Amino acid sequence: MDLREEFPVFERLAYLNAGTDGPVPRRAADAATERLRQELTGGRSGRAHFDALLEGAQELRLRIASLIGADERGVALTRSTTDGVNTVLSSLPLGRGDEVLTSDEEHPGLLAPLAVARRRKGFDVRFVPFDELASEVRPRTKLVACSHVSWVGGKVAPAEIAHTDVQVLLDGAQGLGAVPVRVRELGCDFYAASGQKWLCGPDGTGYLYARPDRADSLDPPWPGYGSLEDAQQPFELAVHPGARRFDLGISPGPVTAWARAAFEVLASAGWDSVFDRAATLASALADRLAERGLDVAPRGRSTLVSWRSADPEADVLRLAEVGIVVRYLPARGLVRASVGAWSNEDDIERLLTHVVS
Amino acid sequence: MDLREEFPVFERLAYLNAGTDGPVPRRAADAATERLRQELTGGRSGRAHFDALLEGAQELRLRIASLIGADERGVALTRSTTDGVNTVLSSLPLGRGDEVLTSDEEHPGLLAPLAVARRRKGFDVRFVPFDELASEVRPRTKLVACSHVSWVGGKVAPAEIAHTDVQVLLDGAQGLGAVPVRVRELGCDFYAASGQKWLCGPDGTGYLYARPDRADSLDPPWPGYGSLEDAQQPFELAVHPGARRFDLGISPGPVTAWARAAFEVLASAGWDSVFDRAATLASALADRLAERGLDVAPRGRSTLVSWRSADPEADVLRLAEVGIVVRYLPARGLVRASVGAWSNEDDIERLLTHVVS
Repeated sequence: MDLREEFPVFERLAYLNAGTDGPVPRRAADAATERLRQELTGGRSGRAHFDALLEGAQELRLRIASLIGADERGVALTRSTTDGVNTVLSSLPLGRGDEVLTSDEEHPGLLAPLAVARRRKGFDVRFVPFDELASEVRPRTKLVACSHVSWVGGKVAPAEIAHTDVQVLLDGAQGLGAVPVRVRELGCDFYAASGQKWLCGPDGTGYLYARPDRADSLDPPWPGYGSLEDAQQPFELAVHPGARRFDLGISPGPVTAWARAAFEVLASAGWDSVFDRAATLASALADRLAERGLDVAPRGRSTLVSWRSADPEADVLRLAEVGIVVRYLPARGLVRASVGAWSNEDDIERLLTHVVS
Repeated sequence: MDLREEFPVFERLAYLNAGTDGPVPRRAADAATERLRQELTGGRSGRAHFDALLEGAQELRLRIASLIGADERGVALTRSTTDGVNTVLSSLPLGRGDEVLTSDEEHPGLLAPLAVARRRKGFDVRFVPFDELASEVRPRTKLVACSHVSWVGGKVAPAEIAHTDVQVLLDGAQGLGAVPVRVRELGCDFYAASGQKWLCGPDGTGYLYARPDRADSLDPPWPGYGSLEDAQQPFELAVHPGARRFDLGISPGPVTAWARAAFEVLASAGWDSVFDRAATLASALADRLAERGLDVAPRGRSTLVSWRSADPEADVLRLAEVGIVVRYLPARGLVRASVGAWSNEDDIERLLTHVVS
């Protein structure tokens, strides 16, 4: 299988923005369309309909669990990385005198929930440089909340975080599907990620890993029908064991069909090969940009490459005009390219030809 | 326009379960499919893409606002009725000594959030008969949280609620799109509703009305990118004015396309005519069931008709076998039919022919 050929967008564009939204595999669009057609003609009701919804959701949960080296009891189906972050910050017992440690490279999807949780619960938040997170943990630090892979320039969180004795919440928006994620090795209690980026799924999908024993001690902070093991006792909160209590709704049929099909496209290419190819191509792009005199932002073994620009917004628009899709980072003075296993030398050449040093 | 012909499901089924999930209009499926095809071939990035997402979401907000007689500053785009209920119960300043009044006819989507909020905040919850809600308000009642239209049998909340001086949260899952909703006349501060039921939209859509002045005083309890007016100041929580701060994510392209097209199908038929026809047909069904000796549950001018059964689950399966789609209500001993403006005499005849008294 040629992975790239699964994605029609590459017939026209050097699409290098999976860090926002991944390219869509044809098979995923077909699966969503077929499921939608079934709902159109057969309705959205009845036992077979709901059994299929729950079975599809469970299949997806199992696949995500396998991808991150977790038990399926540790995976909740959410609708965004932000949902996962909100779930954790809303449900953890943090209060006055406690400190949450975070970094200077975090995304609004982590910072806005952190700001609201701080107002409600009274804990302190301390910002430190991303690379220094592990060494900045101190006795009153109760949680480290930071990116697994920084959305700014693709740095990877210090591995030493795994060896601190505080709880860790990783924002995996630029991690899951982009780089290998093994939640045990990462030493994280919580890993919040998106489905629409590196997994090429639909917008409005996300996944939260929560260590099952931790989840078992927490009320779902945004409960609904999907949280309940016994929906006939909603007020008694007979919730699912493990992370499933954090499920947000029941994943819609076309959404699950798309997510599963996209996952299969990537899995068929082999995850190790997906990760290796993307990281190697991204690294090559970074090197060649630097050779051309561009100021590439510090990065790790990841799929993001950012470089400094005097006018990032104008650069992005100019590149878009010649079919090269990248993004800029407001207020950071950076243009960012996302390189996937589906990218090729031609994408990189096109970008190098048109980039302004 | 013959409204019924917009829905392919009626070619095969007497589909009477919009109270769970509405029938899907062909034009809505076409709009979602077309939008998905654009994302497949053109990618999901760039200014035009995001402008279209935001514009589509805003159009939808305006339509919902108009349908409920509200300013668009009072409408948030959520993903379910439950989201709306969670938003309100999480953000309102309720605490020990306060009482939330609710009824004996509420859905798990209201009760589970209520149970979690009670555990966190320490307020009391008192359950009273649905019809007696208005007269049960007492000095320590700070919020009435109940259905606009009961999911059990289609009773309508007592109009006197509007004249109490406490805040009111209505669960409008069986209200919005089914019966006229004017939030001012209802006297509600908050109205949480679904998009996939009586509005025939996609699963995973919902709307929350929040009185703009009330919303302005509340932090979004589940904040994200969509809550922020200035995404460059996420930690400073520069959130949108009014209810938009409660938006949950940015509505995905195919989802918005479906929701808008479905709304247009109904709006084209004329909302007054949609409401009148559905209520009249539902009332006729209730009368005829009673004439046949069935024990019809108490109801109001709504679109739901429930009747007692010795084995509701078996009845629903048996009816499904002959192409009649209704649902049963666990633990209530009831079978429920949802009658829409798209229903016709033939649906009702089929049901009457096969129902067991």
